[in-house]
Amino acid sequence: MKIALAQQNYHIGNFEENSRKIIEGISKAKQVGADLVVFSELCVCGYPPRDFLEFEDFINKCYETVDLIKEHADTIGVLIGSPARNPRKEGKDLFNAVFFLYEKQVKAEIHKTLLPNYDIFDEYRYFEPAFEWNIIEFKGKKLAVTICEDIWNMGENPLYRITPMEQLIGYQPDVMINLSASPYNYAQDVVRNSLIKAHTLKYKLPMLYCNTVGSQTEVVFDGGSLVYDINGNKVKEMNYFEEDFQLFDLAELSVEDATRIKPNEKVYFSAKDVGDGVNTLDYLADEKNIDEIYHALILGIRDYFGKMGFSKAILGSSGGIDSAVTLALAVAALGKENVRAILMPSQFSSSHSVSDAEQLSINLDNPYDIVPIKNIYESFLTELKPVFKDAPFGLAEENIQARTRGNLLMAIANKFGYILLNTSNKSELATGYGTLYGDMAGGLAVLGDTYKTQVYALAKYINKPKEIIPDHIITKAPSAELRPNQKDSDSLPEYDTLDRVLYEYIEMRKGPKEIIAKGYDAALVARILKLVNTNEYKRNQFCPIIRVSCKAFGVGRRVPIVGKYLS
Amino acid sequence: MKIALAQQNYHIGNFEENSRKIIEGISKAKQVGADLVVFSELCVCGYPPRDFLEFEDFINKCYETVDLIKEHADTIGVLIGSPARNPRKEGKDLFNAVFFLYEKQVKAEIHKTLLPNYDIFDEYRYFEPAFEWNIIEFKGKKLAVTICEDIWNMGENPLYRITPMEQLIGYQPDVMINLSASPYNYAQDVVRNSLIKAHTLKYKLPMLYCNTVGSQTEVVFDGGSLVYDINGNKVKEMNYFEEDFQLFDLAELSVEDATRIKPNEKVYFSAKDVGDGVNTLDYLADEKNIDEIYHALILGIRDYFGKMGFSKAILGSSGGIDSAVTLALAVAALGKENVRAILMPSQFSSSHSVSDAEQLSINLDNPYDIVPIKNIYESFLTELKPVFKDAPFGLAEENIQARTRGNLLMAIANKFGYILLNTSNKSELATGYGTLYGDMAGGLAVLGDTYKTQVYALAKYINKPKEIIPDHIITKAPSAELRPNQKDSDSLPEYDTLDRVLYEYIEMRKGPKEIIAKGYDAALVARILKLVNTNEYKRNQFCPIIRVSCKAFGVGRRVPIVGKYLS
Repeated sequence: MKIALAQQNYHIGNFEENSRKIIEGISKAKQVGADLVVFSELCVCGYPPRDFLEFEDFINKCYETVDLIKEHADTIGVLIGSPARNPRKEGKDLFNAVFFLYEKQVKAEIHKTLLPNYDIFDEYRYFEPAFEWNIIEFKGKKLAVTICEDIWNMGENPLYRITPMEQLIGYQPDVMINLSASPYNYAQDVVRNSLIKAHTLKYKLPMLYCNTVGSQTEVVFDGGSLVYDINGNKVKEMNYFEEDFQLFDLAELSVEDATRIKPNEKVYFSAKDVGDGVNTLDYLADEKNIDEIYHALILGIRDYFGKMGFSKAILGSSGGIDSAVTLALAVAALGKENVRAILMPSQFSSSHSVSDAEQLSINLDNPYDIVPIKNIYESFLTELKPVFKDAPFGLAEENIQARTRGNLLMAIANKFGYILLNTSNKSELATGYGTLYGDMAGGLAVLGDTYKTQVYALAKYINKPKEIIPDHIITKAPSAELRPNQKDSDSLPEYDTLDRVLYEYIEMRKGPKEIIAKGYDAALVARILKLVNTNEYKRNQFCPIIRVSCKAFGVGRRVPIVGKYLS
Repeated sequence: MKIALAQQNYHIGNFEENSRKIIEGISKAKQVGADLVVFSELCVCGYPPRDFLEFEDFINKCYETVDLIKEHADTIGVLIGSPARNPRKEGKDLFNAVFFLYEKQVKAEIHKTLLPNYDIFDEYRYFEPAFEWNIIEFKGKKLAVTICEDIWNMGENPLYRITPMEQLIGYQPDVMINLSASPYNYAQDVVRNSLIKAHTLKYKLPMLYCNTVGSQTEVVFDGGSLVYDINGNKVKEMNYFEEDFQLFDLAELSVEDATRIKPNEKVYFSAKDVGDGVNTLDYLADEKNIDEIYHALILGIRDYFGKMGFSKAILGSSGGIDSAVTLALAVAALGKENVRAILMPSQFSSSHSVSDAEQLSINLDNPYDIVPIKNIYESFLTELKPVFKDAPFGLAEENIQARTRGNLLMAIANKFGYILLNTSNKSELATGYGTLYGDMAGGLAVLGDTYKTQVYALAKYINKPKEIIPDHIITKAPSAELRPNQKDSDSLPEYDTLDRVLYEYIEMRKGPKEIIAKGYDAALVARILKLVNTNEYKRNQFCPIIRVSCKAFGVGRRVPIVGKYLS
């Protein structure tokens, strides 16, 4: 049996476009002589459809799309993902399902058992877990079909009390097939390979794992679909961050070779397993990770614009490292002519802030303008004089500058149809070192899930072929330049320490005692954790952040604003 | 047996304050001769603790607090809610639990079975459902103890496949006790009464239902704890929107009186049941609902400020209805001296915008300032001239004005330590009729879950004792006043129609076909739904909204930003 995997990029709720792609994939599979073509989880509607699932009308459209696709599954078997109605009165009204289509009919329906409900996932919000398990018989072969999380219940502390493959193995299947919508983080490829290899060794079956690709607002799906043979050997790792299509021969995957079976290696079940015990700073800036992050961010930008129906970006170019890296990424994602940089110096700006930013745009060959904020800032102070009276210069005056820049950027964006890219990094967002409606403005945060350490590593990565980001931007001390001679280090701990403590708290979910036990100063840890927790109100109003880590701010991290904990 | 219900207001993660309150409640219960005192769900840490639950350190603090409280449960039985660890390796690591304390010991631990994971709820994110059920024996009585959602599995289409009371009834209990953290919406009291009455009639047992009270960021818990006797009669409906403490005699609740048993009435299982079939506009502005909403909003404001450690609010007072109602509510919640109104007229402001706003602050006797924006606005236009060139006046210029006001308000807030109250209403937020970082700025949205229809009803309610909001503010046509002679009706359908269609789509989850079938114009429905869906990106950056309906924008409504559905 020849099985094709179609790794595709869908658009949530865009049934016309999704069905067009799926039908195209079926057609391609027929051309190459596949018996069966496998798509990814919820491909019919795109993943994650979120509360659209609560509308009958949306579910009707899913069924109509399945019906449309069915007509193309005549001489070929097709596995597609779609929500399906639960015919029982008890329990939630939907399943997260896979439809097996053949001879223009729905021949079988598989339901997802393990519904992820952590981090960015909310599947138990919508779906009833499967409580019956069956294999699919097709052309003399028994297919054990599972959906994404169904295969993630391994390790010493499994999240679920049931494991679908344990139910299916009793039917003596010939192959494991998994349809996924598994999002990227820079440890995820290691975990996936580890997990799928462990499955092939445990169940002595080949496995075909088809993932989706493409970014959906903040969540990047990286593709990287995997095929392992019966001996636990990797046969194929499909492309990352782009669509791919591959054909496999089940007979070849099923040839046992006793000499090739390796003892089970260390299995990673989560990004926390991968990140545990590493040197944090090295790990954050690891070359493999940075290379992946770079491509994830490009895809994240490109898909956000494409799926929102926009082509052009604007951003504030300050001469600092964050805006420089954001600008370079945006140019790579959207094309240099589609990214406009606005330089907005004030009386507190250093001379190099403009010259560095200009040099950057000269290197990138993208359009830029200079709009000084001094006069606007002073008109604010004049009008506020009767209210402020003789109060000394302070945070309020700093924020007026940042918000004036936000207003200018949004005005130009509104006038010409740009989306404003936000340039805040994760270290700033964590500590609240930014101005709401000022430098925190924007439609999409490119670097909001990369720590300052990683922003520097990205700058070096971008400069590897040739100097694009002027060296001075990388070497000078970071500053918000909102008052004379300001430095980030006036307000924040040094980034080397800050990023390591933040990583322990945010990604690794360690509490204060555990972090201090790793050798960090107790007062410093308390100070940093308090900054994180008391600034939740700011992040709550922040735009979507392209997620590259296992714990990004945004939908995957839900913290009470009025909570009084470590604060 | 005498049973006390302690309806209290907790602060998430504030273990010191929560345990102090609980110990005080125990002490009070002893004084009045109670055998047992019942608190509410997760009272130890406050509800909802959200991702704080993912920290070992937080769970340790919960256990330490239970230990502290235990010492006070010497001669009295105490039921308190707290997270509890799951000793099994399989499944999630925590239960949503109730501890039964007596003789300074944990005598029993009850786990929640039904974990709500819809709307604002994320309990399956953290908790393993109970899979064993037991009653608590105490002083010769058998207590059937459940937790909140455990009793919400009734009706023709129940959400869960198991019903805890069906498991417990086999033990022949003497009484049903439920510990809840059940949030307010203006249909919820009807649903709760209906549900609890149905339980007493079905199981022929008295029921004591103890709810929490108080607002946690956006979610208002309204109290209203209920006691029904064995005959299905309501014995007590405890105070709404404030703490309360009551003592009940189980013997009295258990006296059967065959003549008093009434046949089961129509049972409402959800706010949708209550809202179905009503005249929408009448229902939205219903006197009972508006009275409740008024008190919910006051509590929402007061608790947000109190729990954030702030006392003073600022807001932009435009002379329009939304800011007028917000100001009146803020004064009622925080005191007139703690609410500062800023009037920010432009060249597009009508003369009455300032005079109406001034009269309002004179009526309320709260401080106000006038800060004109004309000069600042013109300095923006001057600096943007090289970029805008001769482009005609448009949305960009309107937004500059709104964002200048946002900047001024935030500057004054930053300078003097105010929280900015947002004045947007639900009709505007739904349709995207507002400026990000402009009139959409603020720390808390007071009216973000009330439609324009309801804002008018609130204004009339506030004016009932005497005219506080000048009549002209209520009677004039709504306008953003960002260009000459602008009216809301230039951009939006009339609010009467708009609000009804929005209610069908947002609260009732109806799709376009169903709404059109109710007699609305197809093109108008398509236009409104498209406005709602394409403006998700704006709401995504909006501040917390005090929730008063069964479906508020914010954490309870999760829609993909790049989604292409009805858009």
